[in-house]
Amino acid sequence: MASSTGPELERLIQLLARLPGLGPRSARRAALHLIRKREALLGPLADAVRVVADRVVTCTTCGNVDTSVPCAICQDTRRDPAVLIVVESVSDLWALERAAALNARYHVLGGVLSPLDGVGPDDLNLASLAERAADPVVTEVIIALNATVDGQTTAHFITDMLQHLPVKVTRLAHGVPVGGELDYLDEGTLVAAIRQRTTL
Amino acid sequence: MASSTGPELERLIQLLARLPGLGPRSARRAALHLIRKREALLGPLADAVRVVADRVVTCTTCGNVDTSVPCAICQDTRRDPAVLIVVESVSDLWALERAAALNARYHVLGGVLSPLDGVGPDDLNLASLAERAADPVVTEVIIALNATVDGQTTAHFITDMLQHLPVKVTRLAHGVPVGGELDYLDEGTLVAAIRQRTTL
Repeated sequence: MASSTGPELERLIQLLARLPGLGPRSARRAALHLIRKREALLGPLADAVRVVADRVVTCTTCGNVDTSVPCAICQDTRRDPAVLIVVESVSDLWALERAAALNARYHVLGGVLSPLDGVGPDDLNLASLAERAADPVVTEVIIALNATVDGQTTAHFITDMLQHLPVKVTRLAHGVPVGGELDYLDEGTLVAAIRQRTTL
Repeated sequence: MASSTGPELERLIQLLARLPGLGPRSARRAALHLIRKREALLGPLADAVRVVADRVVTCTTCGNVDTSVPCAICQDTRRDPAVLIVVESVSDLWALERAAALNARYHVLGGVLSPLDGVGPDDLNLASLAERAADPVVTEVIIALNATVDGQTTAHFITDMLQHLPVKVTRLAHGVPVGGELDYLDEGTLVAAIRQRTTL
């Protein structure tokens, strides 16, 4: 390789190979694709990566990534200031935004409690969450963490942490995914779906 | 999405999603990964894409991509000038270079003849191949095209095109892939492997 591809191209391939979803082979394919689509893709990508590298920052209020601090969501006055949605990561925030489920603000924890991985309360954005939840304007904190052991442990930790505050702490409903088939669901989900059944 | 991720980030995601192997969802994951690894990955990638966008050119001699014209392979005086290896694409050139099968020079066709897709002889780098093969120093042209219908049609076309020249035209051997199991091979490959058997 070193003799056939120049060092510049080799470096691009090595960096692309470190993206999730790409390996050494697909990184080479991606690099060739970029070179073939020089005008439409390579040039614009160079600009886009540079702009993001120079300008994207983490919101000091909620932990979202954006080009402004506070981020566009925290600045958005049309959002309900009474509701905070607690998420594990920015990708979860994006998922909820795509679903457009609720016009509220977020708080990105940056992970979940995980004693096995050495992640304790001090490693997460929990202090800032307690601070934001203490704001009198906030009436509800929705915990939108993954339904995993670590996620649920973190949810209980947050509930305990906020219990002295006059805010309602809620969590996402468990149940049958929309479009899901009962036959393929685990027992825990089915029990939750039965227990939390709603009237038609 | 538009409201939650800024336009700069959205643009990066859209461009990443156009890379082969990445879709909209994995492009978002890749963008977040880049932002998390800002120092180690995002900054270097911005530089690497810019350098490649500015400096990579197609070699006017062989069709390889490199930062110099002629490319490093065409300039390499240690390579056998008597042998030309004809490949469909730069990725095939890279594959042969990785295998280090032969220390020769290449000629990238930029595709294969495909009447159904409207690819005729004028769409490929065939004229320049005839020119290079006419150089008295060249004694052999190895046709290293895919063993597909279009690849083999192109191979025959090249053989005809070069038959008035005093060069030997050869093609890659057909046979059992190294590490391959006979049980999984098609009949055509097995027949070729039997016919072209070699003495131990």
